[in-house]
Amino acid sequence: VPLEAYWDEGLKFRSEDGLHVLGVGGRLHYDIAFLNQEEVLDSLFEEITDKAEVRRARISFEGVYNGVFAYEFEVDLQETLEYADMYIAFLRVPYLDLLMLGHLREPFGLEENTSSNEIPFMERSLTSAFGPSRNLGIMLQKHFWQNRVGVYTGVFRLVDDLGADLEGEGNHAFTSRVAFGYVLDTTANRVLHLGLAGSTRQPKGGLYEVEIENETNTSIRYIRTGKLEEVDRVKLIGGEVGYTQEALTLQAEYVSAFVKFEEEAGLAKRHGRYESYYIMASYFLSGGLRKYDTDSNELSDIVLTQKRQPFRVNGAWEVGVRYSYINLIDSVQPFRQMQDLTLGVNWYLSSSARLMMNYVFTKLQQEYNAQSLQFRIQVVF
Amino acid sequence: VPLEAYWDEGLKFRSEDGLHVLGVGGRLHYDIAFLNQEEVLDSLFEEITDKAEVRRARISFEGVYNGVFAYEFEVDLQETLEYADMYIAFLRVPYLDLLMLGHLREPFGLEENTSSNEIPFMERSLTSAFGPSRNLGIMLQKHFWQNRVGVYTGVFRLVDDLGADLEGEGNHAFTSRVAFGYVLDTTANRVLHLGLAGSTRQPKGGLYEVEIENETNTSIRYIRTGKLEEVDRVKLIGGEVGYTQEALTLQAEYVSAFVKFEEEAGLAKRHGRYESYYIMASYFLSGGLRKYDTDSNELSDIVLTQKRQPFRVNGAWEVGVRYSYINLIDSVQPFRQMQDLTLGVNWYLSSSARLMMNYVFTKLQQEYNAQSLQFRIQVVF
Amino acid sequence: VPLEAYWDEGLKFRSEDGLHVLGVGGRLHYDIAFLNQEEVLDSLFEEITDKAEVRRARISFEGVYNGVFAYEFEVDLQETLEYADMYIAFLRVPYLDLLMLGHLREPFGLEENTSSNEIPFMERSLTSAFGPSRNLGIMLQKHFWQNRVGVYTGVFRLVDDLGADLEGEGNHAFTSRVAFGYVLDTTANRVLHLGLAGSTRQPKGGLYEVEIENETNTSIRYIRTGKLEEVDRVKLIGGEVGYTQEALTLQAEYVSAFVKFEEEAGLAKRHGRYESYYIMASYFLSGGLRKYDTDSNELSDIVLTQKRQPFRVNGAWEVGVRYSYINLIDSVQPFRQMQDLTLGVNWYLSSSARLMMNYVFTKLQQEYNAQSLQFRIQVVF
Repeated sequence: VPLEAYWDEGLKFRSEDGLHVLGVGGRLHYDIAFLNQEEVLDSLFEEITDKAEVRRARISFEGVYNGVFAYEFEVDLQETLEYADMYIAFLRVPYLDLLMLGHLREPFGLEENTSSNEIPFMERSLTSAFGPSRNLGIMLQKHFWQNRVGVYTGVFRLVDDLGADLEGEGNHAFTSRVAFGYVLDTTANRVLHLGLAGSTRQPKGGLYEVEIENETNTSIRYIRTGKLEEVDRVKLIGGEVGYTQEALTLQAEYVSAFVKFEEEAGLAKRHGRYESYYIMASYFLSGGLRKYDTDSNELSDIVLTQKRQPFRVNGAWEVGVRYSYINLIDSVQPFRQMQDLTLGVNWYLSSSARLMMNYVFTKLQQEYNAQSLQFRIQVVF
Repeated sequence: VPLEAYWDEGLKFRSEDGLHVLGVGGRLHYDIAFLNQEEVLDSLFEEITDKAEVRRARISFEGVYNGVFAYEFEVDLQETLEYADMYIAFLRVPYLDLLMLGHLREPFGLEENTSSNEIPFMERSLTSAFGPSRNLGIMLQKHFWQNRVGVYTGVFRLVDDLGADLEGEGNHAFTSRVAFGYVLDTTANRVLHLGLAGSTRQPKGGLYEVEIENETNTSIRYIRTGKLEEVDRVKLIGGEVGYTQEALTLQAEYVSAFVKFEEEAGLAKRHGRYESYYIMASYFLSGGLRKYDTDSNELSDIVLTQKRQPFRVNGAWEVGVRYSYINLIDSVQPFRQMQDLTLGVNWYLSSSARLMMNYVFTKLQQEYNAQSLQFRIQVVF
Repeated sequence: VPLEAYWDEGLKFRSEDGLHVLGVGGRLHYDIAFLNQEEVLDSLFEEITDKAEVRRARISFEGVYNGVFAYEFEVDLQETLEYADMYIAFLRVPYLDLLMLGHLREPFGLEENTSSNEIPFMERSLTSAFGPSRNLGIMLQKHFWQNRVGVYTGVFRLVDDLGADLEGEGNHAFTSRVAFGYVLDTTANRVLHLGLAGSTRQPKGGLYEVEIENETNTSIRYIRTGKLEEVDRVKLIGGEVGYTQEALTLQAEYVSAFVKFEEEAGLAKRHGRYESYYIMASYFLSGGLRKYDTDSNELSDIVLTQKRQPFRVNGAWEVGVRYSYINLIDSVQPFRQMQDLTLGVNWYLSSSARLMMNYVFTKLQQEYNAQSLQFRIQVVF
């Protein structure tokens, strides 16, 4: 089958009939972070230092074969390798939009399912502490009501970053998401999104852990439950709201985790309940907007409206602000509550290459402060 | 040199004169296995658990330059990296078909030299316990008698999975294979294959080990010699028979290993002798056959006869059965003998993408039973 | 943007207007070395053994987007991953030729900045003991006087082979290079190159180490300072001379390192001073020459003058000789001085694929001898 090569946020190929599409590429996210915390935190945790790191160095091969199945093969070439998407997807299953099989993201959350190439900030919000991320599973996807309602549901086997489960406890998660995406006005990019997701999970060996840095990958995990033992079941519930109008994007999510411990003889063991939420706004000062993807119910697609001019970067600017909160009652750390205020600026060289700057102001237990100023080079190829 | 892109079991490129050919791609083999064994084996070995793993996650770059030399660069992106084929091959050496230099498969065995993308079952048979696999060497290849007789011979330096030999004992293997492939009837796909191979090997530091699972990568290595010490030389001999007729493929191999220990003063040390064989049949229920490759003397090429139809998977079904046997007299394990009966079903999405199911019934020492039911997603891109 | 595929020392793509250029490929360097040393060195160091290893197994993705920025993503797929070039470069910055940002080579030295695919010998000379190699930084590049004078200057954060600095001492290096490249006669390939480079470096935690093998990657590090402690600052200075005439290339470099230790109370701590140099000649016996690259001020480009003929390797032969010297006054080893005489022969299959043979004769402290005979398969794809 002859193919034509083209560039579209990476090197792509397609057959004349469009039934075969291939992509070969990857992404580089290179970060440097300048960190700061109150002195008392030095003794409670550890001293904090400025850090540089390659955050993501991924290569990916993806494609559609004959219009009937798609695949993705994506590996993060870090010190210890990690697999990202590693799946096959069937595009022509009766009654379904899509049936996916392999190592893929569980359908939980709006931000969680948006690519790291496209989220407005360098890191996901504090709600990602509960994000199930990728596991080995089977997921069904179906849209109803003129594409306005999307339903995603899957069963997953909990695996590690290499897609393996070699200790083999055979635990599963059932995760579903229902999303409502209503395009109010196409020309003005007015879209309303509502979503609800739930997951019930049996953690491996009864162990469950939640931990998170202050939206800075190289920082300290200020909030951490430690390994909770004898956990029988974890239930996650999440709500999503999104709205776009022209160059403005508003987005908020709430996630709650209920941890049910195993019963001990004669004792009623308490149920832990943790929660997190965020609210954010992003705005393109010039020549750009975020478009709603009705097929995946994500507020992801970055559309730069300025036409490509030879020898010029696109130059669009995006600014964003996010407030994020987490509360872990069962924290074994001295703190159980953290709030982040993040300010972000993105400068787009193209729709997939950008320079990012994030300033994060953190308040621990409404008392202690930490800050980070971080920069990223992002190239998608 | 301008190139044209096309799809042929992966992304390929060729120049108009056909002298340059390039390929960029890889393979994903993603497995899940459900395992079971008699209780007594739990205590003799260890408890067995169901397991999921990415069996192969390879990327490869290959090509032919100017019709004169070829190369392959293939890396398995596992937790610990492994190199697969890493060689250069000269295509125009006087008196030869091919001269290969680098990290490549030793010419031993029929199944051993068939790609893991093409073998009818998820794992190779028990004879693979003796397979020399890839080492660093130089191999010559030449065909005679209207391409009916192929001779392969090489000298190899024993290296690890990364092609290195950093402890440097400087031991070598000499391995040769002679194959006879006779096409009886092209239209009816009737072909007879006979093969004979031998190898003489000086193992590193006098240590030699044979071990194998029951045709399930994530299972227990039931059969294992442990590290045999003071081994002077290992000789392998293998016989191959193959036959195809239309959609039917029959194949059998026998491998014997003679282990010669170093002489001790005044004592005649005994020679160990281990053996293994298998016999298998595969049959395409619909629209497919296995074609004999006279250039490499393999029963490998999967040809799906149904024409590609838009938005349809190929849908060919292949079923197979294999009986496999191994006997290790010098086993340090409680068992020295294992038999496997494997039943397999493959469903082809295309000639290179398939879903596989294998059921393996294992008998240890004609007394104890183990079983596995395993599934694979295979995508070649 | 539609792209055309072509082969040019690897798989490349370009848009019709030439503003987008992409490359997907890599390199394989596969070595085997036969080593030998005087018996007394066995006891002073360790016994030496022959060794095979994959020296480089790199994949790379590179490109130019819209004529305005370029990127490179290059990973060495070794047992422990290493990043090579990982940067973004801006091509249209006012008053500059180039502004580079990321993990890139510091501008120090002629040989140091020549690709390992193009250096005439298998390993760089002993001066590479001081080579700063790649770090995380920002580098500016500008040419003056009809491209005859090139200035490179950058500030770098010292990072590990994965581009990270997770222990975070925040130390920096300032490195600059000025090069003068004068094309005396284009048709006769007569070019004179002069260069000067300097670097001032604050090593991490006050620790600094210099060590080097005898131009054989798998050999023993005969010369080694060990970890020098309480180092305040290291200053490097380097001089370069190069000359080409037709198929002949002459090249010499001198590098000196001044190590300034921290002052101790009341004591004037001495300054260490180490030095190294080399002089080399390479000559193409037939059909090839090395061309000076005025844009990067390197004597790198290998141009094979014989036209490509179907089914034929290029077949150009290059011979080279190099004398190399290093002296480390502060060596903690029994030796502080090493001299290497290297003889090399390269056989070119194409301008990027070659078979190499190097013989290295080493003299330690003008008294003890070591030797190596090494071979390489090089394929660039």
